[in-house]
Amino acid sequence: MDYQQITCEIDQGLMVVTLNRPDKLNAYTGAMGSEIEHAFRSADAADDVRAVIVTGAGRAFCAGADVSGGADSFNTAGEHGAGVFGNRLPASSPRSGSGFVDAIFSCRKPSIAAINGPAVGIGITLTLPMDVRIVAEGAKIGFIFARRGLVPEAGSAWFLPKIVGLPQALRWAMSGRIFGVDEAVAAGLVSEAVAPTDLLTRAKAIAHELTADSSPVSVALTRQLMWRFAGAPDPFGLLAIDGPISVERGGHADVREGVQSFFDKRPPSFPGKVSQDMPSQYPWWSDGEKG
Amino acid sequence: MDYQQITCEIDQGLMVVTLNRPDKLNAYTGAMGSEIEHAFRSADAADDVRAVIVTGAGRAFCAGADVSGGADSFNTAGEHGAGVFGNRLPASSPRSGSGFVDAIFSCRKPSIAAINGPAVGIGITLTLPMDVRIVAEGAKIGFIFARRGLVPEAGSAWFLPKIVGLPQALRWAMSGRIFGVDEAVAAGLVSEAVAPTDLLTRAKAIAHELTADSSPVSVALTRQLMWRFAGAPDPFGLLAIDGPISVERGGHADVREGVQSFFDKRPPSFPGKVSQDMPSQYPWWSDGEKG
Amino acid sequence: MDYQQITCEIDQGLMVVTLNRPDKLNAYTGAMGSEIEHAFRSADAADDVRAVIVTGAGRAFCAGADVSGGADSFNTAGEHGAGVFGNRLPASSPRSGSGFVDAIFSCRKPSIAAINGPAVGIGITLTLPMDVRIVAEGAKIGFIFARRGLVPEAGSAWFLPKIVGLPQALRWAMSGRIFGVDEAVAAGLVSEAVAPTDLLTRAKAIAHELTADSSPVSVALTRQLMWRFAGAPDPFGLLAIDGPISVERGGHADVREGVQSFFDKRPPSFPGKVSQDMPSQYPWWSDGEKG
Repeated sequence: MDYQQITCEIDQGLMVVTLNRPDKLNAYTGAMGSEIEHAFRSADAADDVRAVIVTGAGRAFCAGADVSGGADSFNTAGEHGAGVFGNRLPASSPRSGSGFVDAIFSCRKPSIAAINGPAVGIGITLTLPMDVRIVAEGAKIGFIFARRGLVPEAGSAWFLPKIVGLPQALRWAMSGRIFGVDEAVAAGLVSEAVAPTDLLTRAKAIAHELTADSSPVSVALTRQLMWRFAGAPDPFGLLAIDGPISVERGGHADVREGVQSFFDKRPPSFPGKVSQDMPSQYPWWSDGEKG
Repeated sequence: MDYQQITCEIDQGLMVVTLNRPDKLNAYTGAMGSEIEHAFRSADAADDVRAVIVTGAGRAFCAGADVSGGADSFNTAGEHGAGVFGNRLPASSPRSGSGFVDAIFSCRKPSIAAINGPAVGIGITLTLPMDVRIVAEGAKIGFIFARRGLVPEAGSAWFLPKIVGLPQALRWAMSGRIFGVDEAVAAGLVSEAVAPTDLLTRAKAIAHELTADSSPVSVALTRQLMWRFAGAPDPFGLLAIDGPISVERGGHADVREGVQSFFDKRPPSFPGKVSQDMPSQYPWWSDGEKG
Repeated sequence: MDYQQITCEIDQGLMVVTLNRPDKLNAYTGAMGSEIEHAFRSADAADDVRAVIVTGAGRAFCAGADVSGGADSFNTAGEHGAGVFGNRLPASSPRSGSGFVDAIFSCRKPSIAAINGPAVGIGITLTLPMDVRIVAEGAKIGFIFARRGLVPEAGSAWFLPKIVGLPQALRWAMSGRIFGVDEAVAAGLVSEAVAPTDLLTRAKAIAHELTADSSPVSVALTRQLMWRFAGAPDPFGLLAIDGPISVERGGHADVREGVQSFFDKRPPSFPGKVSQDMPSQYPWWSDGEKG
């Protein structure tokens, strides 16, 4: 795919997706959402990609939806709204709007948001389905939807309370207030704040932490087990799956290597690939469950 | 409604509900529960009410259920239990007991508990469906049900873990122990402790934070999206709703004003009212889901 | 039952279960899982047991699954895997694997893990359905599954995010990293770290806190209400149950004693027993819901 609004580079097992409209503070458009979705689906399929980092070009991460259409920017009856909402139109499908969210959520590789500057509105909600968020000192963040007459979208009413708890999520989203990195760290929205010049290095170190000694298939399964059962009403549906997966994995060459390398006191070198070695139970959900 | 056990005043867009049995430390009765329910349903319907504050008259917030009936206070076979359980009797309806909880939960205005003194048993659980809790220094709190032979009620087994996490919720509720404000703040049960004389002023400032620059319709939708999807098993049901709501809201005059005021660097003045301008998707649940 | 891999002692209302393969760092086997299950089911049934403490013999808590079978330890096609997975084989039942997890989860007595040393893999996940975890200074903990090619099991993809939040759970489980007690306390995985020599004393003090002044029936109901509704999609299903339970309990002698002892300013002495006095609503779930 020939990306227009992002760049996408793969180096040493990492895909770095950069929101790339720096003259517009990387303002979000439907086209950008589609490109993010495409990049994550590519990462999911590529065995040489172990993790995805998302950051922004220039001084901003993402200033929110592109409002260059003025006061009618969100009015889909006119020309501008279609640009902002993009692939979320038409709303005829119950899945509309879930494109990039589903791509990040369903990805078998972990993702890290390296928030290099202002992240506002959809500029912050698009990071919520990712596994880790770190932020550059000095950045500002805001769930500003209520101040524009809108609502938290991209599934953020589900994701945000899972990350920072319901009281904090309610308070940020009802007020629409802009806040700084100290508040973001204290609430657990981001795991750490670092100097802007160190941000990408730190994101890569975290990606290494998540993947260096871990089986790619195990990481993929762990991500999906946790995200897809964290909201389950009880542990019993999970127990019916995690036991059989463990038993099936127990006969795989990955586990032989995992145990042998432990005995040998050396780093493991796992042969399994997500493109070929996912267990028979995967996926344990049907598409119907997503719609 | 002519309230007997609470007072209810509306001033500058705020409804202040005061539990008003100071000579009995505002002990809870079924009649008080019905009056709280009525006040919240009134607040929900009144466009001139932007938020609700709940506090107590005198030195206590609420000392728990009224046990002036002695050891038989909770025995509905006698005269006293009917007074304590009030509108939760008869239990013939599966909805019994959910009156004031549902009224607070379903309210389209945010609510703030200003806990001015002891809050014990139902005196603290009645605050859990509210969005923010602050407490006066020196107050004591306890989920004392197990020490009376009872169980956490008013839905608190669902609400409390959402607010403070499951380990803390279990520990407080199984022990029935009374604790102070430092512990309440550390656990996140309340967001802050303030001097008693500053409590109501601080509660009003928080109400202002939540509403001053926010669209009333956005606040109403945000509250309901977060509370009603925070416990959903996955984000997909929400994604099928928040996209279409965003698109429909995008054509509303509120969003024109939200974006224009942003460009003009002035506070917004939203025309939309919750009595008239809720989007067509609202409510997205049926009564059946509540029962 | 004649335990081979654990010891089980009852003293002053406390059951202390000790993982007892000290020469193998209490490595987990299927037989150990079955013995843990049996001990918890015994505790559930015995009115003289108010709480359960689980700890380890020797210097470790539990070093994870027994890998003395070498690289094939998890291969159920051979002789060793059957030993590790034990009662979780055959996988013909959807309930396989849920034996000890269900026994801890469904127990009507609170449980406390006293983690006296290294707790790795299933050595830490087996503690997650318990109500409280404390740890001895110097212990190491790791959700190391991904480093062995395996996945978090025993329902831990549901339990761990409930205890430490989703971002922390994902990060520990994807990296498989070993960490120390400071990190465990900061994340809320354990509620406190104490000197090794004080560990069991402290665990007993917490058991006392949870039970001394609480009705046994109330503790049992509180545990089940919280664990079984913490993941519910909304509070309405709970409200249909907690009201009627409160009303029924209100007529029980436990509540008379709870209120009277409060008036008398003396500790309560509750007559109710879990073997005889659970309310008619209990259990409010069917076995089908677990499978």
